[in-house]
Amino acid sequence: MSQSRLKSEVRVVGTGLLGSSIGLGLTAKGVTVQLDDISPSSLRLAIDYGAGVAATPNDDPALIVVCVPPDVTARVVAEQLRMFPNAIVTDVASVKAAPLQELHELGADVSRYLGTHPMAGRERSGALAGRGDLFIGRPWVIAGHDDITYSQGGLVEDLILDLGAMPIEMNAADHDRAVAVASHVPQLVSSLMAARLETADDEALRLAGQGLRDVTRIAASDTNLWVQILGANSVSVAEELTKVRSDLDALITALTDIDRAGARRVVADALHAGNAGVERLPGKHGQKVRFARISVRVDDKPGQLARLMTTIDEIGINIEDFRIEHAEGAAFGVAEVLVQPERATDLVNALSEREWTVLL
Amino acid sequence: MSQSRLKSEVRVVGTGLLGSSIGLGLTAKGVTVQLDDISPSSLRLAIDYGAGVAATPNDDPALIVVCVPPDVTARVVAEQLRMFPNAIVTDVASVKAAPLQELHELGADVSRYLGTHPMAGRERSGALAGRGDLFIGRPWVIAGHDDITYSQGGLVEDLILDLGAMPIEMNAADHDRAVAVASHVPQLVSSLMAARLETADDEALRLAGQGLRDVTRIAASDTNLWVQILGANSVSVAEELTKVRSDLDALITALTDIDRAGARRVVADALHAGNAGVERLPGKHGQKVRFARISVRVDDKPGQLARLMTTIDEIGINIEDFRIEHAEGAAFGVAEVLVQPERATDLVNALSEREWTVLL
Repeated sequence: MSQSRLKSEVRVVGTGLLGSSIGLGLTAKGVTVQLDDISPSSLRLAIDYGAGVAATPNDDPALIVVCVPPDVTARVVAEQLRMFPNAIVTDVASVKAAPLQELHELGADVSRYLGTHPMAGRERSGALAGRGDLFIGRPWVIAGHDDITYSQGGLVEDLILDLGAMPIEMNAADHDRAVAVASHVPQLVSSLMAARLETADDEALRLAGQGLRDVTRIAASDTNLWVQILGANSVSVAEELTKVRSDLDALITALTDIDRAGARRVVADALHAGNAGVERLPGKHGQKVRFARISVRVDDKPGQLARLMTTIDEIGINIEDFRIEHAEGAAFGVAEVLVQPERATDLVNALSEREWTVLL
Repeated sequence: MSQSRLKSEVRVVGTGLLGSSIGLGLTAKGVTVQLDDISPSSLRLAIDYGAGVAATPNDDPALIVVCVPPDVTARVVAEQLRMFPNAIVTDVASVKAAPLQELHELGADVSRYLGTHPMAGRERSGALAGRGDLFIGRPWVIAGHDDITYSQGGLVEDLILDLGAMPIEMNAADHDRAVAVASHVPQLVSSLMAARLETADDEALRLAGQGLRDVTRIAASDTNLWVQILGANSVSVAEELTKVRSDLDALITALTDIDRAGARRVVADALHAGNAGVERLPGKHGQKVRFARISVRVDDKPGQLARLMTTIDEIGINIEDFRIEHAEGAAFGVAEVLVQPERATDLVNALSEREWTVLL
């Protein structure tokens, strides 16, 4: 365990997924974490999981991290600023402009407030889903503003670095525009697609493949939370969605009269733009690395995957990623092993020598 | 190797991913496969990979499988019907109404034509990506029509069963409507989202997470092929996209004035409809099984995954699915192991006893 940057007590308000994960991460670093939650049972659970100790009226935290739903973030931040006149207060809400504006309206002392947004989450929520390593290596936005001094903000950066995340500074408006594209619009696009399945014929669902599943995976997300997030970033989201609609309009027009001159060009342009967009996504470790993908036949019974992994280990090749593809009703599956491109040939040869079926 | 249903020679025209996979699968069953391709080098490659033998002028196939791009499918089918007046001809194009109509217009003998569409594919194309097990357990649509007798169609069903796929009968119009929802619209929705990334700020891309990646994965698909597919199913696709646009319009209106009465309800309805749609997707093996997901810490070095797999094997639990989550820049990753729900507690206990860190 390396030493923590934070030297003083930290108060975490709200012990859901993010609050309890912060508590777990800081506690593991040796930081004293005081937990508070409006729900006594949630609080108890987070303490039982080791996320910190119960807050008391005599606490004197230097840093307070507000981890409550976006809708109530500003009010809770304002309250904490009032209760602890010497503390720096931050929050982790996934929108940043609206809470800052609300704090101004509430007359809060924003010279001690610096909002943040960790780009980490899980499909599950609550303290039970919390984990101290949730933030390791993840971008964590600090939404800087002009009412707090640089040195006051240092505590917030320490928090982020102690949790292993990567601080990224961005003003609130830029942040909200960025997450509209990177997170909020993808959520709605996924929901819009999945909504078509609600009334689709059974036949269509029988033909569902991996592509449809991937596109609609995040449509399973929590409606209540997302209504709050989208409500608080409605302007940026509406702006991006309007661009989507404009492309969609062009597509519908083209497909409605596909033999009109130029119609196929419109369709091709839409697909090309999609190709170009995907190309810009950073890869694992933030780099655009393309791993080589090796497909290996694996019988659908215990022991086979272990045997495969052991073999690859013996060969001395590091597995960058790994996936199992099961064919429906099949007696075996296909393991897709991603490795550094320069090791691909070695791996294929070594696996073949050891009588694994590498599928080309 | 179980015996094949097909007893006579099969001719495969077009040796791309699907043609060569059919050739490999049938050859493995002992069926004689004659390969033909307009490109001599593609043909040679498929033969080298063991997908069949080169077609000759003296061939007398009972069944001909046309595996060429959708745009030229009808013409090639018509040609094969003329060249082999005793053969049944099928195709594997991902649209079914347009080729059938074109065949009628060409005056082809459709009493010997029965179109199909295997719901299988890969992100890679060409003979090199072909594999004989590509179709195992996958749905494979037979687009029945009234000009071919039931017994004539039997050969096509034999083909599908020999390749391990599941025949599903559906008329051409129903098929095209079903794939519009299950495949074509998801492709375009993914492309529309990915297109937003083409011009997005670098900041937005730095904040990209798994959700965005999943939604946009298939946007990397082949533009040329998709222009053909979408062009041939433009009516059904436009119809579905129009429904998407109607939901999108409502969302944009709501988000543009989020504090108007009812606006948040519109957003919640869109998210709920997405939840409901995802719920209808069939799970692995065609059933709606929800597996339990166990997260285990795995150090990012060779040998760890093998050790984990071996442990799980020793415990005697079958892994239903497996994924590695890497945090950017982190010294370790998280393996997500999916198992039957009733085995989850056993697995967590056994792993913990063996000093694996199970992340709750």
